[in-house]
Amino acid sequence: MGMTISEKILAAHSGHAHVVPGQLTECTTDWVLCHEITTPAALRMLEERGMDKVFDPSKIVAIPDHSVPAMNIKAAKMYQKLKSWVKEKGIEHFYDVGRGGIAHVVLENTGLVKPGQTLVSGDSHTCNAGALGMFATGVGSTDLAGAIYAGRVWFKIPETMLIRVTGEIQPGVTPKDIVLEVIKRIGADGANYMVMEWVGDTIDRLDMEGRFTLTNMAIEAGGKTGIVAVDDTTRAYLSARGIEAGTYTEYTSDPDANYKVVIDIDASKVEPTVAYPHIPSNGRVAGSDKIAVTHAYVGSCTNGRIGDLRDVARILKGRKVAEGVQMIVVPATQAIWKQAAQEGLMEIFVDAGASVSYPSCGACLGMHSGVLGPDDVCISSTNRNFVGRMGDPTAQIYLASPATVAASAVAGFIADPRAYNADGSNAAD
Amino acid sequence: MGMTISEKILAAHSGHAHVVPGQLTECTTDWVLCHEITTPAALRMLEERGMDKVFDPSKIVAIPDHSVPAMNIKAAKMYQKLKSWVKEKGIEHFYDVGRGGIAHVVLENTGLVKPGQTLVSGDSHTCNAGALGMFATGVGSTDLAGAIYAGRVWFKIPETMLIRVTGEIQPGVTPKDIVLEVIKRIGADGANYMVMEWVGDTIDRLDMEGRFTLTNMAIEAGGKTGIVAVDDTTRAYLSARGIEAGTYTEYTSDPDANYKVVIDIDASKVEPTVAYPHIPSNGRVAGSDKIAVTHAYVGSCTNGRIGDLRDVARILKGRKVAEGVQMIVVPATQAIWKQAAQEGLMEIFVDAGASVSYPSCGACLGMHSGVLGPDDVCISSTNRNFVGRMGDPTAQIYLASPATVAASAVAGFIADPRAYNADGSNAAD
Repeated sequence: MGMTISEKILAAHSGHAHVVPGQLTECTTDWVLCHEITTPAALRMLEERGMDKVFDPSKIVAIPDHSVPAMNIKAAKMYQKLKSWVKEKGIEHFYDVGRGGIAHVVLENTGLVKPGQTLVSGDSHTCNAGALGMFATGVGSTDLAGAIYAGRVWFKIPETMLIRVTGEIQPGVTPKDIVLEVIKRIGADGANYMVMEWVGDTIDRLDMEGRFTLTNMAIEAGGKTGIVAVDDTTRAYLSARGIEAGTYTEYTSDPDANYKVVIDIDASKVEPTVAYPHIPSNGRVAGSDKIAVTHAYVGSCTNGRIGDLRDVARILKGRKVAEGVQMIVVPATQAIWKQAAQEGLMEIFVDAGASVSYPSCGACLGMHSGVLGPDDVCISSTNRNFVGRMGDPTAQIYLASPATVAASAVAGFIADPRAYNADGSNAAD
Repeated sequence: MGMTISEKILAAHSGHAHVVPGQLTECTTDWVLCHEITTPAALRMLEERGMDKVFDPSKIVAIPDHSVPAMNIKAAKMYQKLKSWVKEKGIEHFYDVGRGGIAHVVLENTGLVKPGQTLVSGDSHTCNAGALGMFATGVGSTDLAGAIYAGRVWFKIPETMLIRVTGEIQPGVTPKDIVLEVIKRIGADGANYMVMEWVGDTIDRLDMEGRFTLTNMAIEAGGKTGIVAVDDTTRAYLSARGIEAGTYTEYTSDPDANYKVVIDIDASKVEPTVAYPHIPSNGRVAGSDKIAVTHAYVGSCTNGRIGDLRDVARILKGRKVAEGVQMIVVPATQAIWKQAAQEGLMEIFVDAGASVSYPSCGACLGMHSGVLGPDDVCISSTNRNFVGRMGDPTAQIYLASPATVAASAVAGFIADPRAYNADGSNAAD
């Protein structure tokens, strides 16, 4: 029996020639990503056990992103803890506030993480980096502590789900709609502890930003991670970040690899999709119901990239956010922030009546910069719409693409972005 | 005995031909400014007494600014309260999140408030608007409730302090340095319940932004308010905002007006000044001591205007914020934010390694977006450096001009901005 990409990566990192799903392995971690929310707990565990060391300061990447700039004293202390640890241990890769942004999106752009590698972090959206053909996954603080200390982590080899996406993505539809459609199809536990491997001509044509959105959301279907095989698009993306082909291992799934589930998606049939409260699998076509919104949020590790911001600007240009709607745009990193400024997108956002935030996880997880109050209704480009995720438990969160968020902000209710043309006309008028 | 500007305004608004300091009056309020922190308490008082009405919905300006976008559920509820009240009472002037910014700076630009008028708000920096030749002051929530209900407020007529500023302001020195020098001279209670009236050739040459910085800080010397007489600079500023001369009353102080104190300041002798912890009167020359900083904050109703941002950009251009320093730049309003983006300042900030926030009071009062942790040391363009003002009570806050904040952010310790030249060279090198 052949192996999938993920199995090959985990085999290579656990010293096995061959692994099979269900097998317990101990793998080396090429990278450990640390942010200020889960890392302090891991460090405390190590300190309490007299194990206060790091396996390799050159293989740890520290990026504060959730609660920075700090929204209260407690958050300031967690940031201080990360920062002092970075200094004390000589952690080589530290992206401080003002130099980084949302950790997953900073990391994918660093030129550090490469295909064929393993990455763990105490954050569930670590699967994001799987779009680079690497095995990247979130772990709890205990496993994170082990990884920091020993550079090793145990895994049960996951089963793999193959998601074949074919056909042309229609105008106004984005990778976010595709992944919401997949999660709708399989359920929020449909890929429990599986790797979601994306293939097909649609994926082949997708840029890296779109692929990151797909792998980022793996955890929302219960997946262990998401992954996309390396191709010319990956190689060009890496080359632009100083990583040339030949300096990393490109794994491909064998023709006789074992897939537990195969899902086929016709991309041409996917419509702008909105996940209704309170679960990401609760998808319906955008605009099916006239649902008034109080908040519109664009950002997160899922959808805060430059292409996302361009999608939003295209719709907001010459239009206004509806009265009574609070719209917040959060570029994922400082580099994306600058790019948006250079392209003139920022003025479009502000002209429309949106607030632009510093890069941060912010209100995606109800931490700050747009926390929802009772009965607020938010259309959001984020990844999770559980009860209370963005603030008050009575608030309603609808997940969508940045384009759908922008169209809804302008309409004042959840709207189909296809009704908003770039020339300023509204096809729905 | 003649009257000062302030006395004339209060006389006109209390139906007296003549008033004297110490006299109790009941004045009409031309404007009531409401934000989301103190207004809900005032509204609750009115509701509990069955007095839930507003004296004139066209004379109330509502601007959420302190805790927006909300940093927690409680803040979201206070914002909701303000917003629902605005809707219910038909408050005409509402600058929602994304359309406004820091209330005092939004207000000064609205073309609503005019010379000769009275303004109250439940915020101590309401004195800011005094630069427009009006009587503007902060009141407690009880007086705010009365003003909302009846459009009236009682005042004991304040004594007036005359501050005569003459001579050329030296390069690298700003109005913030002048007001810090004045407060250093007279003490943080030096103008208790007095009006601080600014005159002199230096003031005559000052633009409106600089004048707002001066009147904004009146409360930091205990002043009831600050005021500057109308001149051509004021008239041009107002005209640009649709208020033509002749549509407002220009009061001037009589030659025999009674001043309780007269202060003379030679502007040419004022150096970049830093107020050391923990009181704004604790001023020393910037760079006197080598004090390492962890945070550098530019923003607030005192110093978040476009001229302030230009000062910062001039110093940051081609330079980097020192490692270990977290710098945050907060344009005061959406309009200033957009202007900064159009002028290319935003890219300079981000290139230097600073975070740019949405307009908000933010960390100025330790609410969010940069709250200080234990033993943090912040150089800040804000107005108040009391213990715990920006976060943890062990944090140290140094108040300075935006230029001094920028120079210090680059140096990593409190620095004299005169050492940082626009050509990128460092005179101190």
